[in-house]
Amino acid sequence: MFLIIELTGIFFFAVSGSLVAARRGFDVIGSMFLAGVAGLGGGVVRDLILDQTPATFTNPIYFSPAVLGALLVYFFTPAVQKLQRLILLFDAGGLGLFCVTGTMKALTFGMNPITAVLLGVTTAVGGGLLRDVISNVTPELFNPRDIYALPAITGATCTSLLWALGWFTPLSGVIVAVLVFLARLASLKYGWRVPMAAGHWHKEHSNPPNDGPQRHY
Amino acid sequence: MFLIIELTGIFFFAVSGSLVAARRGFDVIGSMFLAGVAGLGGGVVRDLILDQTPATFTNPIYFSPAVLGALLVYFFTPAVQKLQRLILLFDAGGLGLFCVTGTMKALTFGMNPITAVLLGVTTAVGGGLLRDVISNVTPELFNPRDIYALPAITGATCTSLLWALGWFTPLSGVIVAVLVFLARLASLKYGWRVPMAAGHWHKEHSNPPNDGPQRHY
Amino acid sequence: MFLIIELTGIFFFAVSGSLVAARRGFDVIGSMFLAGVAGLGGGVVRDLILDQTPATFTNPIYFSPAVLGALLVYFFTPAVQKLQRLILLFDAGGLGLFCVTGTMKALTFGMNPITAVLLGVTTAVGGGLLRDVISNVTPELFNPRDIYALPAITGATCTSLLWALGWFTPLSGVIVAVLVFLARLASLKYGWRVPMAAGHWHKEHSNPPNDGPQRHY
Repeated sequence: MFLIIELTGIFFFAVSGSLVAARRGFDVIGSMFLAGVAGLGGGVVRDLILDQTPATFTNPIYFSPAVLGALLVYFFTPAVQKLQRLILLFDAGGLGLFCVTGTMKALTFGMNPITAVLLGVTTAVGGGLLRDVISNVTPELFNPRDIYALPAITGATCTSLLWALGWFTPLSGVIVAVLVFLARLASLKYGWRVPMAAGHWHKEHSNPPNDGPQRHY
Repeated sequence: MFLIIELTGIFFFAVSGSLVAARRGFDVIGSMFLAGVAGLGGGVVRDLILDQTPATFTNPIYFSPAVLGALLVYFFTPAVQKLQRLILLFDAGGLGLFCVTGTMKALTFGMNPITAVLLGVTTAVGGGLLRDVISNVTPELFNPRDIYALPAITGATCTSLLWALGWFTPLSGVIVAVLVFLARLASLKYGWRVPMAAGHWHKEHSNPPNDGPQRHY
Repeated sequence: MFLIIELTGIFFFAVSGSLVAARRGFDVIGSMFLAGVAGLGGGVVRDLILDQTPATFTNPIYFSPAVLGALLVYFFTPAVQKLQRLILLFDAGGLGLFCVTGTMKALTFGMNPITAVLLGVTTAVGGGLLRDVISNVTPELFNPRDIYALPAITGATCTSLLWALGWFTPLSGVIVAVLVFLARLASLKYGWRVPMAAGHWHKEHSNPPNDGPQRHY
């Protein structure tokens, strides 16, 4: 049951990786690679921190969603104008599932509740972050026009609370994941935001300087 | 004592991360995330290499400087024209402290002196490097207009020497950190440099080609 | 024998890192750092996944090729117009050797053959990927105008097969590495490609949108 939920999350992130590869004009091998990094990266980082040989590398089945995602995107490439929306949709699905499974796995390894939340969030945002970093775009995580990490933080906190109360079941876990997914989509649709890092700049000027990425700040 | 020094270093890097977030126009959650990565990234990499569960994830107190840094930057955002200077200032503070604590931690885990220096440098430059990489700017480490890694390498070497001679104390450690900090600031003020990677290009032309980041070289 | 082959691979990637540093206008310390990341990054990631303290950090000899590579590039900087070709040449040499040694090391640690292939490919492409990511260019791995990962995947698979059949020797390993190297060079010379990630876009339009790296997709 846990494996099915985890593979579904990997699949969602993998598809988002292949869609980014399509959008950036990479080839199908790059697509598989980016699907693998997006789908498996968060979990590998989590397992390294937990001082475990990553499950990904002990059981090759974890790689099948990446291959499947790349093939799906290859055979059913969406129209260009739909790409962005689909990337965000699949990314949101992975985010919801991984903030639950990541937190749960940390808890089963005896981490304290706060650490487990932090590790769950790391798992949830890690795959998408690595996907964006290695394909050389500013991570979606930092997009100030919607909220990304906040639903994952909330979902991981709920998972940790449910676990402490003894109410964590596959069903309650999936419910949390679906709520995180919906919150993320709602933030995209309605432009929910949190305040900017630079507090008082809101009033002064709405466009803080955005360095070109190749320049030193 | 060691914890206080380490938390101070984390705080310095965390503030630099939040200032980068402010400069790049990220929101306050992104600011906390970047503060966490900048402050904790170097230590996490060091602990993974030492085959330890990162201290960061076993004791949640390590996350408090990141939250504090993001809040400080939010409530006391400096003027735009002061941002660059403050980023470099806080980064230099973290660099000085981490090249000492990183080397020391590697030595306490029984690493040989040379390895400990390399691991200390990794700790010192790792947080800033990850901060810059995930916010999609060319790392400050590679800025050829001043010296960045060299003070950290020197500080880590001094720490390793002091340790071997039995003269390493919290006081001598802090003195090394302050000297590294001052050397870094002096290099920024006086434009100290080391030779370019491409030795003989100095004479031929002063502007080697700088690829746009999205192009393949 | 194994150490010599591994150090040769590290040297090739280290030179590619220093050449990238030269091309991007970094200084000689940045050149050493990039040489170290390119040469040692793939192996460090492999060892972390194998839950080993990276060999790199237990034996400082692993750092000598990085220093040597940076010095060579400093004293014998090639002409600008030859840089790109040399980067790709040395990168190809490292790719060939590392897909063999990475797979072999995973097999000696008792990994199953499929996992060993995946870990070998991770080792082979990891160094170049980290080199490109931290110097803020789109990784060569994703360049759709030639093939990069495919020769490494093939070489790692051959290594795993030779091992299973009991035919793996230093000689057969070097032969596989040379064939991977030649296949990579041939793909550069003759423009061998694999299909694009976005299957049907070939017919519709040849230039899928390539986001500037600083924009959110």
